Amino acid sequence: MKTKFYGKHFLNTQDWKKEELETVLSLALDLKEKFALNEQTPYLLHKTLYLLFFFSSMRTRTSFEAAMDQLGGNSHDLAAESLQLSHGDTPKEVGRILSSYGHGIAIRHCDWRVGNKYINEVAVNSSVPVFNMQCDVYHPFQAMADLMTILEKKETLKDKKIVMSWAYASSYTKPISVPQSFLLLLSQFGVDVTLAYPEEFKLMPEIMEQVAENNKQVGGKLAITHNIGEAFADADVVYPKSWGPLVTTSDPEKGKQIINKYKNWICDAPKMKLAKKDCIYLHCLPADRGVEVTDEVIDGPQSAVFDQAENRLHVQKAILALTMGGK
Amino acid sequence: MKTKFYGKHFLNTQDWKKEELETVLSLALDLKEKFALNEQTPYLLHKTLYLLFFFSSMRTRTSFEAAMDQLGGNSHDLAAESLQLSHGDTPKEVGRILSSYGHGIAIRHCDWRVGNKYINEVAVNSSVPVFNMQCDVYHPFQAMADLMTILEKKETLKDKKIVMSWAYASSYTKPISVPQSFLLLLSQFGVDVTLAYPEEFKLMPEIMEQVAENNKQVGGKLAITHNIGEAFADADVVYPKSWGPLVTTSDPEKGKQIINKYKNWICDAPKMKLAKKDCIYLHCLPADRGVEVTDEVIDGPQSAVFDQAENRLHVQKAILALTMGGK
Amino acid sequence: MKTKFYGKHFLNTQDWKKEELETVLSLALDLKEKFALNEQTPYLLHKTLYLLFFFSSMRTRTSFEAAMDQLGGNSHDLAAESLQLSHGDTPKEVGRILSSYGHGIAIRHCDWRVGNKYINEVAVNSSVPVFNMQCDVYHPFQAMADLMTILEKKETLKDKKIVMSWAYASSYTKPISVPQSFLLLLSQFGVDVTLAYPEEFKLMPEIMEQVAENNKQVGGKLAITHNIGEAFADADVVYPKSWGPLVTTSDPEKGKQIINKYKNWICDAPKMKLAKKDCIYLHCLPADRGVEVTDEVIDGPQSAVFDQAENRLHVQKAILALTMGGK
Repeated sequence: MKTKFYGKHFLNTQDWKKEELETVLSLALDLKEKFALNEQTPYLLHKTLYLLFFFSSMRTRTSFEAAMDQLGGNSHDLAAESLQLSHGDTPKEVGRILSSYGHGIAIRHCDWRVGNKYINEVAVNSSVPVFNMQCDVYHPFQAMADLMTILEKKETLKDKKIVMSWAYASSYTKPISVPQSFLLLLSQFGVDVTLAYPEEFKLMPEIMEQVAENNKQVGGKLAITHNIGEAFADADVVYPKSWGPLVTTSDPEKGKQIINKYKNWICDAPKMKLAKKDCIYLHCLPADRGVEVTDEVIDGPQSAVFDQAENRLHVQKAILALTMGGK
Repeated sequence: MKTKFYGKHFLNTQDWKKEELETVLSLALDLKEKFALNEQTPYLLHKTLYLLFFFSSMRTRTSFEAAMDQLGGNSHDLAAESLQLSHGDTPKEVGRILSSYGHGIAIRHCDWRVGNKYINEVAVNSSVPVFNMQCDVYHPFQAMADLMTILEKKETLKDKKIVMSWAYASSYTKPISVPQSFLLLLSQFGVDVTLAYPEEFKLMPEIMEQVAENNKQVGGKLAITHNIGEAFADADVVYPKSWGPLVTTSDPEKGKQIINKYKNWICDAPKMKLAKKDCIYLHCLPADRGVEVTDEVIDGPQSAVFDQAENRLHVQKAILALTMGGK
Repeated sequence: MKTKFYGKHFLNTQDWKKEELETVLSLALDLKEKFALNEQTPYLLHKTLYLLFFFSSMRTRTSFEAAMDQLGGNSHDLAAESLQLSHGDTPKEVGRILSSYGHGIAIRHCDWRVGNKYINEVAVNSSVPVFNMQCDVYHPFQAMADLMTILEKKETLKDKKIVMSWAYASSYTKPISVPQSFLLLLSQFGVDVTLAYPEEFKLMPEIMEQVAENNKQVGGKLAITHNIGEAFADADVVYPKSWGPLVTTSDPEKGKQIINKYKNWICDAPKMKLAKKDCIYLHCLPADRGVEVTDEVIDGPQSAVFDQAENRLHVQKAILALTMGGK
């Protein structure tokens, strides 16, 4: 267990050591139990977290709000358009000024090739922790909630077949950050993962290299397939989720044409039958019902999507309490 | 006095027993006194209430925010358009996910034939209390504040002439929920009420049936008139308020034509002179000044509109504290 | 030191005595120290401050939010357009109703010839303190932060050359409230100030008369020049900031033509060289970089703009705690 977290940014899981992430998961479980007991956890009493949204959100926003409430602090939702962020304030000014007022700055900025850069610029200029609530590259809080859910449901990650798969959805803009952060985190933990996608939906090469590097060091393995049936076969965990062919093309029209070639990549009952009987279905929500996944699967007994959503709350409380909580 | 409230939804007053509503009114008075004394009432310390607005509001929003503050908790204003509620999240997901994060969900959704249905769907899927901040059918918190104000001003409801009347206003969209919830609540308390409206402005038949059923059981009486002067004669309480001819027509153009036939249904000094000298004037605000009511009346000594507005705060604190406060 | 502040509005510094403002500055320093020590200051525990924005803001909003958090209370950001403020609720109703729910009302309303009038109307109708977060005439919290920063950097105001100067910026709408409140406050403290502007940018005559009256009573002096170089010569503090030629013309097109005559009124390194070596550069932000000021100056060692921004937080906490904190 690590104990020195105060002032640490949480921009992606890769910047944190495995032991640090394990401390987070352990604390998250503890906070979840206290929540069930209605026990107070005011680790951030009267402290301030700013939530900067360049892209709106239901789960992300409401889970961060509840997290700060339960830690005894306050959060403030700053929609970029309602501030003067567009005319005048640079990331430097946002970082310098907000960190002189509050105790943490959480940012969601998903614009391709822009979001991550922006968050990093704020972080460099901030004297308090900066949190990545999702960017064009990473979604580290989601990955932590995903891992926590798998651990709760499966107890061990050893000898489990864990599948991250692309799924069909008609919208082009679905972000690539979810699979990327999932793969990175699991490779940090030395877990074997199967990644399935039609060829045009490859992930960013620098992420794949980092996953390979992690696997080399910690001992995990990544299997890649372009056949969703092969991926689902005997799986313990499936996480079928749409993302855009961003690495292949930046032309939305061309992107749409590519996507529409793969309408059969829906997660339905026949595909779930290929997996183990106790295989769980994951999705970060919102899902395109009837397109990405059938109601039967997402509302069925194998679905763990609401556990996943709830765990967002607890991993976030753990990370906020550890990094914003010191003197 | 009732004591088991934890986890109870408050979707309309009809679902609550008279004794339960009496407990609410008694607690509201107690909380109002403590507020005057600047005494702390942290019954919901560090707890979270989500406020979902499909229709914006001044009184409703600010009174719920202050209510949670004074109870030691937090509220978060979620405007439907700023979330992803339109593309992706169903009422089921809203109920499941928000109730896994927070301790209460309050919703305002006034769309005709849609709002009440939505709120009920969220409630069915929520593990924490759901509150109706106004829908197309009901406005139960307003009715509780109305009743509290009458009780404060008149001490007893016995042998009082209480009048709910339609009033002229040029906008078609004024909701029907206020008179409906008022009539329902007063019939639960066995109070005699006079209802006045031009024929095209009848209330929903299912509401009128419930009022009749309540009156049969508890002993109150409902008198209906289409003559506003007759209604105001010797009244102790008048509540003249515009609503749309929604039950008669769903065509806005036709609705407007109907409304414009009744410009003389304004609450003015001559009409107030028909009532008792100490008759009080109620309105849930905002009022269309010069159209629904003259400045002379709404700003005059008989007006109790600011008491009514303030009492929103205290009845809401009572209901939130009772339902969200347990373990 | 003064001790009776409860219930006092803070609409401009002129309404407060010098001793009262000194108490604020002294408390602000104390609260800043406690903030550095991470010591709790819950003077407004569970109290409510409403923030009414008719004009959005980054610094103002986030600093008031953090201020209330650190005082143990809550704030609620009410954007005028998201409420029903436009259709129905008068300033009277806003004052009466919000003051029956919460413990303070802060308003930002910068519309020329409208904002100050609106804030005063709310104040007259409010039973709790009303705070001017900037109007068309005044920006009193900014002026207090400006003064606090000068005192921190220069220790004494005696025999210092303090310069408020107009600066070039391409937008017409920059408010005149900042120089006006700065001049007023410094004249209340008997400080000598040099005011520099091109002739068309004179301040409101009633403000200039009040400054002259203050100077007569307390002993300060105001020097006016239309030459920026003359103003900067041997200065200890420079505060070059754009504002519109509002007193000269209300025609935006004509205003723009006037502004564009003075592109050389930029604060750059050569101008800073005219001042004393330890002269500090002030700006209330956001600055038009490359237009109002060069990056070299605003990011350089003489710039105190981030201290100024941070001090907003501490003077606001002081004023809120003093006025909202009693019984």
